[in-house]
This record gives sequence, C-alpha cells and structure tokens, in this order.
Amino acid sequence: MREIPDSHPRKASLLARQRIVDASEEGLLAPSAMIAHGRGEAFDYMLGEKTSDSAARAIREAAARLTDSENPVISVNGNTVVLAGKELLRLAAVLSCPIEVNLYYRTQERVSGLLSLLEDLRGEVSEEARPEGFEGDWSHAVESVDLLGGDPNHSIEGLEGPRSMCTEEGIGKADTILVPLEDGDRCEALVRLGKEVIVVDLNPLSRSSIGATVTIVDEISRASKILLEESLRGGARPSQWNNSEALKEALVCMAESVGKF
Amino acid sequence: MREIPDSHPRKASLLARQRIVDASEEGLLAPSAMIAHGRGEAFDYMLGEKTSDSAARAIREAAARLTDSENPVISVNGNTVVLAGKELLRLAAVLSCPIEVNLYYRTQERVSGLLSLLEDLRGEVSEEARPEGFEGDWSHAVESVDLLGGDPNHSIEGLEGPRSMCTEEGIGKADTILVPLEDGDRCEALVRLGKEVIVVDLNPLSRSSIGATVTIVDEISRASKILLEESLRGGARPSQWNNSEALKEALVCMAESVGKF
Repeated sequence: MREIPDSHPRKASLLARQRIVDASEEGLLAPSAMIAHGRGEAFDYMLGEKTSDSAARAIREAAARLTDSENPVISVNGNTVVLAGKELLRLAAVLSCPIEVNLYYRTQERVSGLLSLLEDLRGEVSEEARPEGFEGDWSHAVESVDLLGGDPNHSIEGLEGPRSMCTEEGIGKADTILVPLEDGDRCEALVRLGKEVIVVDLNPLSRSSIGATVTIVDEISRASKILLEESLRGGARPSQWNNSEALKEALVCMAESVGKF
Repeated sequence: MREIPDSHPRKASLLARQRIVDASEEGLLAPSAMIAHGRGEAFDYMLGEKTSDSAARAIREAAARLTDSENPVISVNGNTVVLAGKELLRLAAVLSCPIEVNLYYRTQERVSGLLSLLEDLRGEVSEEARPEGFEGDWSHAVESVDLLGGDPNHSIEGLEGPRSMCTEEGIGKADTILVPLEDGDRCEALVRLGKEVIVVDLNPLSRSSIGATVTIVDEISRASKILLEESLRGGARPSQWNNSEALKEALVCMAESVGKF
C-alpha cells in the first residue's frame, strides 16, 4: 500500500480503509462490505473521527453489562475482524467469553478464512505483555478464547436462511451479546429472544442502532480500545440506560458538526 | 440480484448499489470505488435521497453554463458511467459535446472497458424516442457523441502521473467541464487552467466541492436527469454564481435532516 505520513490528520481512517480493501481482495469480505465501510467513513467524518462524550458513556455502560453478565459473547462479521480483531480478542480474554463469527452473507469459505485470521491474531495477542489491570496468566487467558461459528449447531429464532445459523455454546446460550456492525433484522431477532444486545454502529438512525439495548455510536476499533480499558478498570454497574437519549445525543453531535462549517 | 419490491422506499438507492457491486466484480471499477459509493450513500441518506431546492438551482446554473460555452466536455470516471452513463450520453447529444473517460487510478483495461460500455449505451440511447424539446435528428445526434480517453495525447498541467493524461480534443481544449465525482487535486488543477468546472458531489465539504465553479450537491443519476431537462428547456443565462452560498445551503439541509430525528 501507499505510505501515509504520520502527520496526516486522517491517517487512522486511511489505514482502516486500506485494510478493508486488502481483505476484500483476499476474499474475506462480502461484495458490499466496502460500501458499508464507506457509509461508516462518512458518518465518522461527521463525528470528527473521535469518540464523543456520549459514545464514551455508552461504552462504559456496555463494559458494565458485559462484565456483569453470566454468558457474554462477541459476535463478529468480516469488517469487524479486519478492523478490530485484536482489540476484541483482548476483550474476550478479559471477559472470558467466546468470539463467534456470524455472517449475514454466510459462505463456508469466508467463515473459515475469518476464523483462521482470528487464530493467527490470537497467537499474536497471547504473546503481548499483560495489559494493566489484568490479573492472572494473560497468555493462558487469550489462548482460552473459543473461536466459534465454523460448525453451527443452533439457529437464531425468527430469522430464516443461512444468516440464522449460530452455535449453542456461543450466541445460543448468551445473555449479553456484543454485535458490532450488525444488520437490523438480526439485532431485532436477538432482542426478541430476551438477550441484551450491545451494538457498535456509526449510523445512529440504522435499525440496529434503534433496536439495540445499548448502542455505541463510534468507530469499531476506537470503541473496542476504550471498551477494553473500561472492562479492565471494572467496578461499574449496569444503570437504567436510556438508549433513545444516547442516539439523540449522537445526532446532535453530528448536526452540530455539519452546521459549524 | 435479489428482487427489490417497487414499494421499497429506498429502491433507487439499493439498485444503484447493486450496479456498483456488479461493475466492480466485472473489473470496471478501482478497488476503492465501492467505498466512495458508500460514503455517497450516507450523505444522500441525509439529503433524504432527493434533489434539494438548492441543488436544483445549481443544476439550472450548470445547464446555462454548459449550453452557453464554446467547448463543453463531460469527464467521466467508472462510478459515473455505471450510475448515469445513459443520462450523460443524452446530455452530450443535446450539448453536442464529447464524453471523455478520465480515471484517477488509470489502467488501460478499465479505460477500454468503460469506453466499450459507453459505446453499447450510446447504441441503446440512439434508438430511443427523441426527447421533448430536442429539435433535429436524435439518432444522429447521439451517434455523433465522441467517446474519448482511450488514446490520450495531452496532459492536465499541474498534475503528475497517469491521472494527468487526457485528450486535446476533449478536456484539453474545453472551456467548461462537467466532472461528476472528481477528486480534489484534479478539480483544483482544472480550475487553475481557467476552465469552468462543474462538479457533482454528495459531500459538500470535499475539496472538489469547495474548489469547483459550480457544485451540484446531489446524487449523480438524479442530477443528470434534471440537467438534461434544463438543457432541453434552454433559455437560461449564466448568473453571478455564489458557490460558497450553495454549499452552505446543502450543509443546512443536511444539518436540519439530522437534527429532526
């Protein structure tokens, strides 16, 4: 890829774009994954490409709920693995929870490719220094993260076709599910099953954003980093969360950004 | 592709997306073309996926300037051909001007592919009924539209590399250039050469939007249809155009849209 100087104000965004283009060429992503990424770029541009105070509060709430739950799971699609695979593996190690590959346009080839990428990343993360705030054997915790989704034995009630396929030990039995970049139908189906659904979505008006229990309106790799820090800090308790209020704050933030030019 | 019911409120947008995905798979587009399309989708979403009053005024101004100029040209990239090829061929027939394929990530293969797609579309358009307001032989007018760019013999001063390549009889000698979805560098270089540059761009804050003589903040296929109607109607004269004011109106329109949820 072309070199981007460190001084470039949009370096993180351009690097993320390149990762999506590369992964797409490697066949890891569905054809429209790049379009979804472009939409996200435009919304992030309006957020000033930084985590808003409102999103930071949603991340704290998400950390509290994930830490507090019996059976959390992190459900990932292609863009999520490519943009925030390592961050989410660290989070899974801290939460002692599995990661499940769950694709809207499911093909066995892409599921296998993403699982094998996650395995490689898991190996790299397990060799990192123990993050501040983590007690115990880091390498063991990381290596114990189950990577699910290759062999689905369960389905999400209320959905039809390949996109309903999941695993009993992952999404099936989960009480709280972190699903970055989820589609609206699945978000709604998971909520109907009584699960707490935590979504990361840059579009505050998407059906996923509106349907979720807690919506983090932020870019997935930035949000994952903060989510990890909050989970390591610990101590927070779930609150009475008003998700509509949080979405309104995100919209106000974008409206102000657009209006100030 | 999957069927989208006529009643779907976002049918036009979903069909456009599918055309971009298909063209991408056929190798007609650069790898990041889908990302650019996704960004456009997000901005269009905020415009309510319709032509604003402010954009309609910019389109009228563009029609007046194109009609009034000695040597207009329509410069197209891959996304433009895929999304609005037929509309722009009709416009070129009305203006008696050439269409030039001009790519940022130029490869001979993509240039040839797009020229051959334009040739096919030209054949189809030449067999259509003469549009209302057009006087003369429609089929002859359409078949006379030169399709340039396959054999560049000129370059855009102030730009380096393959993206500067153009033709003398097209972009080289043009006094007014319609360049939908142009990149900022080229837009600025064309303006520095003293040409009137009319841009169609959904992002009112892009460098192209800010640098152009007239910016139409609208989706390319919608804008092209209206541009054709205005050109056929005729009679309008170029005004003292305040482009910054037009961009501000587009931003106000988006801010209101985001703020009202």
